This record gives sequence, C-alpha cells and structure tokens, in this order.
Amino acid sequence: MDPKVMMDTMWVLITAMLVFWMNAGFASVEAGFARQKNCVNILSKNFIVFAVTSIAFWFLGWGIMFGDGSPWFGMQGLFGLAGADNSPATGEAYKGVYGSINWTGVPLLAKFFFQLVFAGTAATIVSGAVAERIKYLSFILFSFIMGMAIYPVVGHWIWGGGWLAKAGMWDFAGSSVVHSVGGWAALAGAMILGPRFGKYGPNGHISPIPGHNLSLATLGTFILWLGWFGFNPGSTMAADPEAISRICITTNSAAAAAILSATVASWMLLGKPDLGMTLNGCLAGLVAVTAPCAFVSVESSLIIGLVAGVLVVLAVMAFDRMRIDDPVGATSVHLVNGIWGTLAVGLFAQDKFMANTTGSGLFFGGGTKLLTAQALGVFAVGLYVFIISAVAWALLKVTVGIRVPLQEEIAGLDVGEHGNSAYPEFLTRKPSYSYATAVARTSGYSTEAAVQEGAKR
Amino acid sequence: MDPKVMMDTMWVLITAMLVFWMNAGFASVEAGFARQKNCVNILSKNFIVFAVTSIAFWFLGWGIMFGDGSPWFGMQGLFGLAGADNSPATGEAYKGVYGSINWTGVPLLAKFFFQLVFAGTAATIVSGAVAERIKYLSFILFSFIMGMAIYPVVGHWIWGGGWLAKAGMWDFAGSSVVHSVGGWAALAGAMILGPRFGKYGPNGHISPIPGHNLSLATLGTFILWLGWFGFNPGSTMAADPEAISRICITTNSAAAAAILSATVASWMLLGKPDLGMTLNGCLAGLVAVTAPCAFVSVESSLIIGLVAGVLVVLAVMAFDRMRIDDPVGATSVHLVNGIWGTLAVGLFAQDKFMANTTGSGLFFGGGTKLLTAQALGVFAVGLYVFIISAVAWALLKVTVGIRVPLQEEIAGLDVGEHGNSAYPEFLTRKPSYSYATAVARTSGYSTEAAVQEGAKR
Amino acid sequence: MDPKVMMDTMWVLITAMLVFWMNAGFASVEAGFARQKNCVNILSKNFIVFAVTSIAFWFLGWGIMFGDGSPWFGMQGLFGLAGADNSPATGEAYKGVYGSINWTGVPLLAKFFFQLVFAGTAATIVSGAVAERIKYLSFILFSFIMGMAIYPVVGHWIWGGGWLAKAGMWDFAGSSVVHSVGGWAALAGAMILGPRFGKYGPNGHISPIPGHNLSLATLGTFILWLGWFGFNPGSTMAADPEAISRICITTNSAAAAAILSATVASWMLLGKPDLGMTLNGCLAGLVAVTAPCAFVSVESSLIIGLVAGVLVVLAVMAFDRMRIDDPVGATSVHLVNGIWGTLAVGLFAQDKFMANTTGSGLFFGGGTKLLTAQALGVFAVGLYVFIISAVAWALLKVTVGIRVPLQEEIAGLDVGEHGNSAYPEFLTRKPSYSYATAVARTSGYSTEAAVQEGAKR
Repeated sequence: MDPKVMMDTMWVLITAMLVFWMNAGFASVEAGFARQKNCVNILSKNFIVFAVTSIAFWFLGWGIMFGDGSPWFGMQGLFGLAGADNSPATGEAYKGVYGSINWTGVPLLAKFFFQLVFAGTAATIVSGAVAERIKYLSFILFSFIMGMAIYPVVGHWIWGGGWLAKAGMWDFAGSSVVHSVGGWAALAGAMILGPRFGKYGPNGHISPIPGHNLSLATLGTFILWLGWFGFNPGSTMAADPEAISRICITTNSAAAAAILSATVASWMLLGKPDLGMTLNGCLAGLVAVTAPCAFVSVESSLIIGLVAGVLVVLAVMAFDRMRIDDPVGATSVHLVNGIWGTLAVGLFAQDKFMANTTGSGLFFGGGTKLLTAQALGVFAVGLYVFIISAVAWALLKVTVGIRVPLQEEIAGLDVGEHGNSAYPEFLTRKPSYSYATAVARTSGYSTEAAVQEGAKR
Repeated sequence: MDPKVMMDTMWVLITAMLVFWMNAGFASVEAGFARQKNCVNILSKNFIVFAVTSIAFWFLGWGIMFGDGSPWFGMQGLFGLAGADNSPATGEAYKGVYGSINWTGVPLLAKFFFQLVFAGTAATIVSGAVAERIKYLSFILFSFIMGMAIYPVVGHWIWGGGWLAKAGMWDFAGSSVVHSVGGWAALAGAMILGPRFGKYGPNGHISPIPGHNLSLATLGTFILWLGWFGFNPGSTMAADPEAISRICITTNSAAAAAILSATVASWMLLGKPDLGMTLNGCLAGLVAVTAPCAFVSVESSLIIGLVAGVLVVLAVMAFDRMRIDDPVGATSVHLVNGIWGTLAVGLFAQDKFMANTTGSGLFFGGGTKLLTAQALGVFAVGLYVFIISAVAWALLKVTVGIRVPLQEEIAGLDVGEHGNSAYPEFLTRKPSYSYATAVARTSGYSTEAAVQEGAKR
Repeated sequence: MDPKVMMDTMWVLITAMLVFWMNAGFASVEAGFARQKNCVNILSKNFIVFAVTSIAFWFLGWGIMFGDGSPWFGMQGLFGLAGADNSPATGEAYKGVYGSINWTGVPLLAKFFFQLVFAGTAATIVSGAVAERIKYLSFILFSFIMGMAIYPVVGHWIWGGGWLAKAGMWDFAGSSVVHSVGGWAALAGAMILGPRFGKYGPNGHISPIPGHNLSLATLGTFILWLGWFGFNPGSTMAADPEAISRICITTNSAAAAAILSATVASWMLLGKPDLGMTLNGCLAGLVAVTAPCAFVSVESSLIIGLVAGVLVVLAVMAFDRMRIDDPVGATSVHLVNGIWGTLAVGLFAQDKFMANTTGSGLFFGGGTKLLTAQALGVFAVGLYVFIISAVAWALLKVTVGIRVPLQEEIAGLDVGEHGNSAYPEFLTRKPSYSYATAVARTSGYSTEAAVQEGAKR
C-alpha cells in the first residue's frame, strides 16, 4: 500500500473526527448561552442535527456537491455515493463521476466523511439563531433541506468545480461555504421567526437575556477551538507537512488575536471584559481565518483576527439594534466574519503559499482581481442562501409551523416539546407568569399587552 | 524504521486515546442520568475504574486474554507482559507467547494500550446499571475481578484464538467481547442489588427517576460517539485506508439511523421525543454496529442502526416491567444491542469486505452457517459471564457487602461514601425524609412501610 | 516528500492539539474546585491565558528559549520566529539559528506549535493557585511575562541547549520545565496575594471551601489525562513506534497507581475516599512521570505514581497548615510532584531506553551522578523562578494592583470583574454578608473583626 495514501487517509479521518467533535461544542455553547428552561430542546436539536445531516448528505447532498455535471450543481452519481469512482487514484489517473475532488488521494469514503462533518457544521450553525422559540420538528426538517440541497449547491459552486471556482474565488476551508451559508440561513430563520418574547420592548428597549451556564459555554468554545485544528489544517486533505503546520499556526494566531481584541472592545464599549464576548471573539477569529488560513502569513492572520474580534462585538450590538434576535450571536460570528474572512483572502493572500495558484491579494501586490472574485462570491452566496432559506422557512411556517405557542415559549420548550427538564433537581428562578410580569415591567408593556404582543406573532 | 510500522503504531495509539476518552463519556452520561445526591459517587466510580483496570489488566488480564495455551484461557506470559515477544514482527516472523495478536505489526506496548482501553470499557459499562445504591469498595473490587479474570477469558475465546474463534464466530470490535460482557455483568449486578428505593411500588407502579443534568449526559454521549471512531476503526490495528474509511462511515451511519429511529419510537410510544431515548438510541446504534462494522455495507449499517434504535426503547420499557432497575439503561444499550450486533454479523456480513475470510451472512447468500456461529457465541458468552458475575457479586455481598444502608441511599451516597457534595452551593429539592414520604405517596406504601420495605433488602 | 517528515509532523501536530486541549481541562478543574461566584472569572482567566501566551511566545518567548546565543538565554532570531531556519532538515544538515531543536525533523511552525502549547500549560498552572481573589488585569499581565520571559529562560537552560542541559540534567517532557516553573510562579503568587478571606481563622482554624461543581472538575481531570497522552508521548517529536508506545504506558501506569494511592491515602487520613484527592492524585502521577516517562520501565512508573499519589495528599494538608491558600492544590500537584518527578529520573532512569545517552539512575547502577544533576536542576529552577516571579508579582502589586477589594471578593469576582454570573438562573446559598457572618462564627472572629482582618490585607 502506498504510504502517502495511508498517511493522507489518517490525516483526513483524524481531522474529520475533530470536526465531528465540534457538534459537542456547538451544543454546549448554544445551551450555555440560553436559558435552562430551553436547554433540553437545544441539546436535542444539536444532537439530532448531525444524524439528520448524515442521512441527507449521504442520500443526495454529496452527489449535488461533488458530482460532475453543470456549473450549478452535480448531476452524476447523485444518490448514496453510487457513482463510478476509483479513488484513491488522483488527477489524470482518476476515473469516476466525482472529478472535482480528485486532487486528494484518499478512498471515497474518507472524502465523504470529511465533507459530511463540514455539512453538519453548516446545518448546526442555524440552530443557535433560532433557539428558544423554534419547533423541534421544523428544525429537523430544515436541517434535512440544508444538508441535502442548500449547502451542497454552494459547495458545488466553490469546491465542486462550479462557476465561482471558475471565476477565481478561493475559500480554503469554508468561511463562505460553511460559515456564511450557515449564517445566511440562520439570519433568514431568525427574521422569519421573530424575536423571543420579552427581548425587545417599545421605545427601543432591549432586555438582556443571560445564558444559564457559562461553564458549559466556555467548555463548548474550547471544543470548537480544538475542532478548528481539524477544520482548517484538515482541509488540505493531505498530510503536507509545511501546509498543515502553517495552517495550525495561522488558525491559532487569528483566534488569539480576536480573543484579545474582542475582550478589549467589550471592556471599552461595555465597561467590563464580558466573557460571552471573549468566547464569541475566539469563534469570530476562527471563522474569519477559515478561508485565508492556507494563503496568508502568520502576521496577516494576526491582523485578520484582530479585526474579527472587534467586528463580532459591533455586530452583536448592531443586530440587537435592528431587533433581530439571535440568542447566541450565531450571525455575528458566522455570517459577519464569514464574509470578512472571505474578503480577507482578497486582501492578504500571498501567491507563494499555494504554489502560485491563487494570485495575491490587494495588500500583497495582486491588485483588486482576487478581491473582486471574493466579493462576487460573498454576494452570490448571500443572495442564493438567504432567498432559498427564506422560502424553506416560509414553507415550513405555513405547513408544520415553525414557532411554538407563546404559552410554551414562556414556560420553556423543554417540557412542551420533550417532556423533559434539563436540571429537575436544582431550584431555579420561576420563568412562567411572574416572568412575563417582569418582562412587562422592564419593557414598558402591561402584562396583558406583553402577552398579547407575543400572541400576535 | 519501516514506515508501515510507524503509521500503524500512530493509528493504534491515537485511536486508543479516543477509546480512553470514552471513560469521560461514560462518567458524564451516568452522572447526568442519575440524581445529584449520588453524583460524586458516580464520578468516583467512573474515574477510578480505569485506574483499577490498568493495574488488573497489566498484572494478569492481558496474559489470560492473549497468552498462548488453551482454547479456554491463556497460560503463557501471564504476569506483567513478561512473556517473550518480538513485536512488531508479524505472522511467520513473530516469535513469542502472544501469538493470537501477531497479525498487527505494532510494538507490544501499543497492542497492550489498545487492548487495555477496551478492557476498561467493559468494566465501566457495569457502573451505570448498579448506580445509586452500590458500595464504592465493592464496585472497585468487582472492577478488579472484571479486568483481571472475567473480560479476558471471553476475550481469549473470541480474540485470543480460543474456541469461539475456531468455531467461526466473528466480532470485529467487540459487540460481544466488550459490550455484551459488560452488559451481562451489569445485569447480574442490577438483579442481585435489587432496585433503588422507591423505584417500584406495589400494583406494578413504576416511578420515573429523572437524571439531574441532561447537559452533562448529552456531552457525555457526544464524547462516546467520538470515542467510537477510535473503537471501531482502530480495531483494524493498522492504518488500512479502505478499511478504516469504510468503518468510520458504517459506524456513523448506524448511529445516525438509530438516533432517528429511537427518537421516532419514543415520540410514538411516549408521546414526545425524549432526549434520554435519543441519546441511548445513539449508543445503541454504535454498540450494534461494533461487531459488524468491518463486514457490512453502508446500507446494511443503516438498517442495523434503525433496528437498534427501536430495540433500545423497547428494552428500557421491558426491563422496567421486569422490575430490573438500571438507572441509565446500560443493559438496554450494551447487552441487548451487543447481542443484536453480534447476530447482525450473521445476517448482513459480506465475504468480500474482509478478503473472503468471514463468509457471508444469511441476507447475502451465506446461509445460516455464520449466523449459527454468532448465536453460539451469544449463548456461550451470556452463560459464562452471567454466572461468573453473579458468583462474584454474591461473594462480595457476603463479605464486604454490596449495597449501602437504606438511610444512606435515601440521603445520597455522596455524603455517605465520600463526604463530598457535587454541587454544595446550588439549592436542590430536598431528597431526605420528605422524599421517602413522596415515594410512599406515589407508590401506595405508607411511609413506614416504604422504609421497612427498603430495609428488608 | 519524505514519509518520515510527514509522519513526524502528523504526530507532532496531533499531540500538540491534545496538549492544547488541556486548557479546557485546567479551566474545568479550577472552575469546578472553586465557588460559583468566581466561576466566570476563572473561566475567563483560563480562556484568555492561551491567547496571551500565543502572542507572547510568538513575539519573543520562542527566540529566548530556542535561539542560539548563550547558556542563559537565546540571542538570535528573537522576534516573531524570523531567524534563519531550514527545518525540517536535522542535525548536520540543519542551517539556522534554532540549533538546539534541530534534532526533530519537522517544519519550523510544527516545532513552534508544539512548544507553544507547552508554554501555555506553564502559564495556566498559575491560575489555580491565585484563584478567587486576583484581579483579571494583573493575571493577564503576569501571563504575558510568564510566556515571554520566565518560562522560556528555564526552557533554554534545559531544552534549549543551556547550562543545565550541559550539566547533564534530563527532563523528558517537562516535570521541571513546565510543571515546576508553573508551580513556583504559582507559589509566589499565592504567598504574595495572601489567603482568601475566611480561609484561615485564629488559633490555627482552617475552613474548608468546597468546590461548586465536581462534575466539571472530574470532566476536567479526564481532559487533562487525555491531554497527557499528547504531552508525554508527543515530546519525542517523532513517530518512533517503540518510544511512543512505551511512553503511553508509563504515563498511564503512573496515573493509575497515583489515583489508587491518593484514594487510599485520603481514605486513611481523612476517613473517606475524597473525590478531590482522587482527581489530584491522577494529576500528581501524571506530573511526576512527565520527566522520567521515556527513561524508565513500566514497573518503575508504577512506583513513581504510587509515591506521587501519597505526596499530593500530604502536600495539600501541609500547605494548608502553612496557611498558603491554593484553592485547587496547584502547588501540591505541579510543584511538589514536578520536583519529585525530576528527582525520580535520577533514581529510576535506565540508560538503555534512550540509546545510552542519559546514564542510569541510583536504583539502576548509575550511582548519584544523574541524581545530582537532577537536584541541581530542581534547585536552580526553584531559585530563579521563585525570585523572578515574586518580583513580577510585587511590581504588579504596586502598579495595577493584584488583589480585588474585599467587598468584591466577598460578593464574588464574577460581577465585580466581568459583570457576568455563571449560573444566573440557579438559586444558590447567599455568599455575601451572611457568609462573612458564618465565617466569623466558625473561625472565632467576630463578624466585624473578620471584615477588618480581611481589610488589612
């Protein structure tokens, strides 16, 4: 057996396992940042979403994403990976219908495993933005659509040899393919669902709704940071020593810089170093460096991270001012910094790092050519994903319904949707009617008006 | 140095670390599914069990399992891995007394590490079924016996070149060797201990006893799912690209299918999608695919998982109706699905996947030959482990005692056994006398009768 | 591409990721062992410390540690890894200014990543000892100094070809370089800060302050145990099958033995098997075997662990009697056992394990030569780190201040430093004035005297 195939396969599988592990991170961050009365629902969503994606991406997603066919989507070997394929043969030696991913010399099922965990990430990003009010069933159905048809189409455009790849757009590990896609779908969901009851009052009043367990949220962020060492260095899909070593460092450097800049930004803007901002700063830096990690120097990665950490703090505040309620800041992290990271390729890329295939960015003598292609990608991805997601959410709304009844939202989704309670033995502050009263008081509504306002949605 | 030895050793060690990591998963799942008053005891058991196994399996277990000697148990190189061994030499070139594992070309201590973490898993499975009432000391002693003498004997039969291997039974990664063994020992323990105070009342009344922390249980299940990517693909004990890639996918597909089928089953049978069932469904699918993961197609693994998810829901309900109290469902997960997975080899195996060594199962033209051998294995393992475990538990019962006093059980084992409290600052619902009163009320006992009933055990 | 470079790079990066993961373990252990009112502060410290170290060690630390120059510190290629370097070339073929680490054949950024995660560990050890009273800003500043100038100097002496390496001292994975360094800095910090309010009363009274979440602490210890399989076996910085297999087993055996001996010791000395002692026993064994893991037999590692487990229990009790308040036992674990492990090399080393480069220890016919060199190292490291750390802490004390106001300490650092609460929905026992009252009662102070006593500091 060829040693290179053995090593590349080990690398791809092990890094894929790290990305799989990110599911635990997303579950922990979202649960920790939300209220305990919705905890079981959040854990359930984050747990089942990878199972749903596993079926959906195997059934059709992979074929749409990597099947040969058109610049818009795959048309061969669509179902159940059943197309011809002689992997691990590469390049000219490759014979099969998944030609766009013939550059990595690993078996077909190793490629599938790595791409599957990426599809799962895109789907799970949505969960945070729609938390604490979405029906369990409609989330499951949306995830199925996401893994089968929304994510794979964009994936085909950029990684499947589609029209954006041909237009010269580069996204090494998925700032756009994974994070912006998840982020746009999340934004559409958050907007169509509307804010949680009690979040926004009249006269611009915004009620902070603190998370119930910051230990869990912090552990979750560590899990995600670890997982990103699979996400980015694994995207080489080969154990290339120089490349994977440098990508580990650019990835970590961006995270470190963003942690510090987000902490400083929150210290200056909010008066204290808010832990939630520190954690989201980390994720923002990681999202932003995902597209450029293989194309930029360590110094550039530090700058990319510094900007990302500030961006996420500003974005959280801006979305709140727009009254778009995203309980965990998923859009600020994944959408805003997915866009920033994609554009950063056009600014900081250096042609030398990828054997002169990418061209250089604006700051390294490449002019605006690369930056333009990146901006085109950002625009196209946003347009497609936001519209198709909005249509999907709207269809779900008029069929199975997407939002739980107000009564259930106030009492918590755990009992309503699952008949469980996450911490049945711990005494907690009462969330039910007295909660609505408190909301009413701080928001300027009367209790009755608050309940009625909620009911109108 | 031979590159293949280097790569195989890396693969074996890294996957062994993932299996080691499952200890954290078992601890979290069991603690999360139990009450907070017993949390320290559960954490202690799950933490110390791997230390105990490490000593026991090094001291004698390895020798019994892999030493040359008889079809029943090893007889050479018994103590402290001190027998002759020229690993990483393989096959004909191998000289030593651990001939049954000479097919993998890694150093002796790499083989030992991988097998040790498996032994630890078998021992830790028991913990969940005996939770909330077992004495700490007697659990430690049973674990020592398990790692030194119960598990290794079955291991010798199936993986150590013993009589079941010669009879044509196949168990790739241990649905029987690890999970059924743990499950039978757990069942014997749960039956001899008797149910927790207040679990079953007269007239068939069953009191649900919800777990105290579903965030922890969910995180634990994610840990186990991740660990299984070590458990199954690592059991190749070689970095064989095709095999490890396919095993990753069959493993994940079975988990995904079982998650969905267990969720649907609980939704239909219990009225709501119960998170505990979703989590146990995942574990059930993973246990079931453990034996067949290398021998079956992706499509077959999906079917194996679908069945496993339904089985675990039905088994949890059935054990409760038999008044066998297993606080976390360990027997439903590991025993029932360990059996199902072992039999599934006889149904779904395809000879081609293992270079025509296994034969094919009933559904793929192999007739009943393989299925019969698998059934023989199920029967023999059950007979041996259930009896030897029952004897061990009985001996412990009459010597050090296996159950804490009723008073301590009601007040919680944490203070009684360890002098600790897991969450001393959080206010919790009172578990002491008022709890017994509540139990009495719901179960139809008078308080005094309830206390006396418990005292009789 | 040379397969050995590919394999070594994979090994170094993957084990580095495991060491990175230890940050999550340190955060969880420290948070779990402390009170909930300081939980956000502890999580924040443990999260930001790796970001700070990432910048500091990249900016200057690496250059001081591995740059050519003097026996005392590096003087070439100081800033931003900018020195000449043709890694992965090794030995004679190496051309560059980081000659002391030219024995491992991996790219420069892989070396940097592995060494960076070690620097982060040294810095994070400090956090536990200064918990529940240190100002967030001053901890951040100390961490920066630690990663840039304290840790790298000792690292240069022992791993950077400095004077202790030339004196024949051996520390395979860092019992001294990482753990003692962290431990001495922690000790200096704990002494200069003084004990937490209410910990020690008059007449030798010691108030136990139990941790708020032992589930979290246990999970954290599992994380650290897993991480150590990166820490020790990864320190080969090469995928050497024999060495990495044996180091996995010596590492695990020491942990297992220490878990059992610490549990027994606490059972005998404290009356019950204390979970905190079991967990710290595990860490003690791991710290102790870190220096000798590659030089000793499995049997020796068991003895080293047995001693470590007893040592940590005695040390925790001794530090308390000396009224040095270390909320999580960081000095007992990392300092005391870092010293023990370093000396253990001089007792248990066997020349054969490292191709006759180390010499043998006292118990294996090597006389006192190696032991003397080890003792010299222990002494020199202690002298340097304790003094320089004390100076740094003192400087921080007179500039930004190192301790929060008493009022804030009693109310909890979470609100005071961060404006967050870790668990805002759970009801907890009141920690404020009634707490001071309770302290006063158990310690023999009047409430007013207790507050005044605290205020004097």
